[in-house]
Amino acid sequence: MPDKVLVYSRFPKSLMLRIGQHFELLDAGGKPPHEVIAKEDLASVRAMITQGSSLLNGEMMDGLPKLRAIVCYGTGYDGIDLKAAAARGIAVGHSPGANASSVADIAITLMLAAVRRLVVADSYVRSGDWAAAKPSPMMRPQQGMRGRKVGVYGLGEIGRKIAARAAAFEAEVGYFSRSRHDVAYQYFPSLEALAEWCSVLVIAVRAGPETHHVVNADILKNLGESGYVVNIARGSVIDPDALLAALKEKTIAGAGLDVHAREPYPPDELTGLPNVVLTPHVGGHTLESHQAMQDCVIANLTTFFAGRPLAYPVSS
Amino acid sequence: MPDKVLVYSRFPKSLMLRIGQHFELLDAGGKPPHEVIAKEDLASVRAMITQGSSLLNGEMMDGLPKLRAIVCYGTGYDGIDLKAAAARGIAVGHSPGANASSVADIAITLMLAAVRRLVVADSYVRSGDWAAAKPSPMMRPQQGMRGRKVGVYGLGEIGRKIAARAAAFEAEVGYFSRSRHDVAYQYFPSLEALAEWCSVLVIAVRAGPETHHVVNADILKNLGESGYVVNIARGSVIDPDALLAALKEKTIAGAGLDVHAREPYPPDELTGLPNVVLTPHVGGHTLESHQAMQDCVIANLTTFFAGRPLAYPVSS
Repeated sequence: MPDKVLVYSRFPKSLMLRIGQHFELLDAGGKPPHEVIAKEDLASVRAMITQGSSLLNGEMMDGLPKLRAIVCYGTGYDGIDLKAAAARGIAVGHSPGANASSVADIAITLMLAAVRRLVVADSYVRSGDWAAAKPSPMMRPQQGMRGRKVGVYGLGEIGRKIAARAAAFEAEVGYFSRSRHDVAYQYFPSLEALAEWCSVLVIAVRAGPETHHVVNADILKNLGESGYVVNIARGSVIDPDALLAALKEKTIAGAGLDVHAREPYPPDELTGLPNVVLTPHVGGHTLESHQAMQDCVIANLTTFFAGRPLAYPVSS
Repeated sequence: MPDKVLVYSRFPKSLMLRIGQHFELLDAGGKPPHEVIAKEDLASVRAMITQGSSLLNGEMMDGLPKLRAIVCYGTGYDGIDLKAAAARGIAVGHSPGANASSVADIAITLMLAAVRRLVVADSYVRSGDWAAAKPSPMMRPQQGMRGRKVGVYGLGEIGRKIAARAAAFEAEVGYFSRSRHDVAYQYFPSLEALAEWCSVLVIAVRAGPETHHVVNADILKNLGESGYVVNIARGSVIDPDALLAALKEKTIAGAGLDVHAREPYPPDELTGLPNVVLTPHVGGHTLESHQAMQDCVIANLTTFFAGRPLAYPVSS
């Protein structure tokens, strides 16, 4: 008889197909589990699958008295109270690096699309304005990638892949990270210094209380009028009011955002701006990335139910 | 007194500012020169600036009896009858490589945007459909870049830069070109073989009679259902009917097109499709690229008026 696993967040069913071949899934579909799943089933749940960004605090953990493993689908685990889990003897696992290539790709996609004004360009052709010889919204040429200074904030696995990709565009690459790495990119000792130097800031830092709104009005101002900010980490890293003001007042040239302060609710004013490119948190949303994340989930649950430490524990 | 130069194609005035500091420009604004410029002025014109894609045949050259230099703004010269020019003792120059980085960048921008469905994603967020929890057009994950086979058709300066950029995305890179190059990418002896192997075909070949419609229904079919075609060369390289059919019938997954069969008139049916990304021939449209192209134009005209061979002649 397969082991029972609670599916805590809302996932498309297709993503749980392979995992469901190994475990009996109790799918709460993103609703409070006690509303949709029988009490006796919940009472025996020892492991759950969740999205790292879904809120999971001590009180919620207490609703599942036998819970001993929280397995995040993806790299992030910012929604989980790690201290509360540790205090209850609950192990937390994730999928480190499984989606790194896909997320790094979306960062570069957003960077290029913003710098080359792709959405505006596509709309100019698609609307018939080009054919009608209406004035082009791209009339004035802007600086492209060659020779640009790209600053990567956070040099984990995703940040490194972003840096490697950016360098291929003949851009200079620098980074700020908690610690200096043995890499060929220029190191900056602070986010302020990085933002002062670069004209494209790519946010790839792990989100948490210490990075909340650290990309604020001052940091954005440092990017300059031809500067761009790209965020593929978490919406919480950017002060959303400061970003909206910078984009509206054109103290920066634009932004490319895959993550947002309140998903799925990007501010109405933001969605009306021509100098942003917006994606619905799909950085890790590729076939190969889901496959790798599912591999990690299955490995974490398999080791847990075998009584061994999680295959991919969150290191705290 | 500065030398007179006819500006034959329609250019935004801003692009001619620097050149106008060195030469006296007679700007036809894209109209037939004899309609807008005085006959005696035209009679003494010895040099012209044109876009390489603008048609310029022997008859048109005969309307300018003293013409001895045709200077293309950009890399391409496919609109110019080189034999007719040679027969009249007219030198033809261009701006080799000046826009290579910018054009390679737009190729990768279009590739990533098509593969990651960027325009659809942006529209899903911007329209409010994401916030309203409407079904996502990106629900089913698709293959991303990692491990994809990217085939580059044409390995000139632009093709090489495209190949280098594509490799940074952890893709396999192959190419077909008239001759084999000493590069790390896999060589294929024909366009058919390249298309059979790859799932993203990037067209970077120099356009001309021998490449007219060579990317036809058979080549597109070889790319497969998860295949993409990206064109930054010239619209004439693709059979437009075959492309439209492949996109509508989904025998390929999508296309990213900066160049079009009849610019600025992409087919109406094409502009209605969700699986294409369209840009209005802006590959070389960056500040640094225009600067480099203007440098080449000025160098070509300066050497010509000094009685020397063009600095950057078209090699035929």
